[in-house]
Amino acid sequence: MTISRRDFAKLSALGLAAHWTPQVSALGQERKIGYCVIGLGRIASHFLNGAKNSEHSQVTALVSGHRDKAEKIAAQYGVPKENIYSYEEFDKIAANKAIDAVYVALPNSMHAEYTIRAAKAGKHVLCEKPMAISVTECQQMIAACNQAKVKLMIAYRLHFEPTTLKALEIVRSGKLGTLQTVQGANGFNIAPGEWRYTKKLAGGGAIFDVGVYCINAHRMFTGEEPVNVKADFTTRDKDDVRFKEVEQNASWMMQFPSGIIATASTTYGSQMPGYYKLFGTKGWLQMENYNYDNQHLTARYAGEEKGAPGVSVDILSTEKDPMQFVREADHFSECILQNKTPQAPGEEGLADMRVIESIYKAAGVKL
Amino acid sequence: MTISRRDFAKLSALGLAAHWTPQVSALGQERKIGYCVIGLGRIASHFLNGAKNSEHSQVTALVSGHRDKAEKIAAQYGVPKENIYSYEEFDKIAANKAIDAVYVALPNSMHAEYTIRAAKAGKHVLCEKPMAISVTECQQMIAACNQAKVKLMIAYRLHFEPTTLKALEIVRSGKLGTLQTVQGANGFNIAPGEWRYTKKLAGGGAIFDVGVYCINAHRMFTGEEPVNVKADFTTRDKDDVRFKEVEQNASWMMQFPSGIIATASTTYGSQMPGYYKLFGTKGWLQMENYNYDNQHLTARYAGEEKGAPGVSVDILSTEKDPMQFVREADHFSECILQNKTPQAPGEEGLADMRVIESIYKAAGVKL
Repeated sequence: MTISRRDFAKLSALGLAAHWTPQVSALGQERKIGYCVIGLGRIASHFLNGAKNSEHSQVTALVSGHRDKAEKIAAQYGVPKENIYSYEEFDKIAANKAIDAVYVALPNSMHAEYTIRAAKAGKHVLCEKPMAISVTECQQMIAACNQAKVKLMIAYRLHFEPTTLKALEIVRSGKLGTLQTVQGANGFNIAPGEWRYTKKLAGGGAIFDVGVYCINAHRMFTGEEPVNVKADFTTRDKDDVRFKEVEQNASWMMQFPSGIIATASTTYGSQMPGYYKLFGTKGWLQMENYNYDNQHLTARYAGEEKGAPGVSVDILSTEKDPMQFVREADHFSECILQNKTPQAPGEEGLADMRVIESIYKAAGVKL
Repeated sequence: MTISRRDFAKLSALGLAAHWTPQVSALGQERKIGYCVIGLGRIASHFLNGAKNSEHSQVTALVSGHRDKAEKIAAQYGVPKENIYSYEEFDKIAANKAIDAVYVALPNSMHAEYTIRAAKAGKHVLCEKPMAISVTECQQMIAACNQAKVKLMIAYRLHFEPTTLKALEIVRSGKLGTLQTVQGANGFNIAPGEWRYTKKLAGGGAIFDVGVYCINAHRMFTGEEPVNVKADFTTRDKDDVRFKEVEQNASWMMQFPSGIIATASTTYGSQMPGYYKLFGTKGWLQMENYNYDNQHLTARYAGEEKGAPGVSVDILSTEKDPMQFVREADHFSECILQNKTPQAPGEEGLADMRVIESIYKAAGVKL
């Protein structure tokens, strides 16, 4: 027995999906969710490799402005040639039953348009971070997906990364006591020729692209939304073409309702491996190098400072890229197959975007 | 020949500091500088052990309110009984030729008074950080020492710690390119019964005591004075007696004239091992655990991210406490013997105090 997304959506609307779940789960092994990848840049290759190695996901269609490139990738990943679409043809995906969902891997400023068009075509949407370039766009995307009764998830890959989940487990277990201070940074020295420093395409600078990891991590670990944001942006190299439209460096400070204070930095002008540190009344935790692999989690609890070795938790991840994307794709596929709400729904992307807007406002920089 | 901190920085940048050091060292072997230790708390024991192991320094007198305790310590460190003074008798040190300098290890609010009285007694002053509890006091201390023609140094122990000096050498060599973002933290979960959370004695909270390390490190590595300070203080546990008078947590952000942004945090309510991170256009550097020993310095330069092992510098200090105090004491002794300006003169403590006052002002907290 097979069940189409439309059938499932109907059942879901009738509240029957819950009954179905175990069966669907079993069924899920029989069929894979078909993804249409929109935009064939760097992040898309991670996802293509992830889906290839996944249990419940497969890439069944591509959207690209470069037919040649798309055909090469299609051949590589076993995507039928007839499932390659240009941007102009995009809305035709509605008629393609091989496509259950789209993966939006476009420049930030195009996320909203293609998410909304995908929803209108009846397809679920897995959208890369940052969700869009404004709070308004995020709200429109959520509304469009709700109206079309399709699922929307923001591709926060680290939500599926085991050492990150271990960190979350430690925080929630109370082993660190009451959190008081959180810190972090994430950035890199952007290569010339990237769309990511063009404001029209990116919405803003490093905060949108890599700083959002700090925002999301701090929100996740505190479980709170910031109430008081301060920020400084600077551009040191006025003549550097990369920093004509967006800031070179940004740092911010946020207070959470419970009193936790966060500080974070991001950049497009320096090497800055992603990390966070969480300090609680009973211990501290840090994650270093939260890139695609080699995450390093350390936690140390009160009273152990003077002991040897004294390290309560010290995990160097052995998982390699594209495992985060395998887990991310399969989670969304399972949500579709079992009619579950994704772990990072549109509301999660919206919450981060609210913070991004607050940071720009605090820095006195127009978005 | 005298040399200021800035001169020393220049010499150091020119690679000349190394030539200079051995000569001083050779001359210094002729006699040891005699120190009178004022205040016999925790930091004083580090100094006592440091001086004991030093080349040019010895503790020749003690000032304490507890005669019994002082006699025990005097016996332990070979200090003649007749050189034990009460606070009331303090000014009598003027007549004691065994005392060249005093080491002020008192609660912060007493630094100014005893530094000024020591200067008036004709003794050089090595004063613990924070220098005092206000900019005004710092200025008075500098003036008093100038007037008495005695030297004044603030006991920034890490200025003499080899991995810290290695970090400074890396920054000054230009290997990190242009610095853009600096971060850091330093704090701890303060024990009940400490004078350090009593405002009258400490001047303020964790910033004065441990946050000042972040301030000093950021000023040292950037070589600039901050122009724009933002800060948040929070107290999460209103009923905790430790946080009745001073903040539990503080974070701040500072912009430097060149555009470098600094973020830092401190606390008296969490374990927070001292660290700093410096991000430049060509690489980054971090120092972890800058306590009395086990400092861990890592630096990584552009282009090495993908190589293995890829770590340009990875040094775990093998020096143990009290080596920082040995070096600190001997540096000041050499300054006295050679009539040179200490590496961290009063102006250095004053500059940090200006920042501390700015942080409190930015947080809207009265000092």
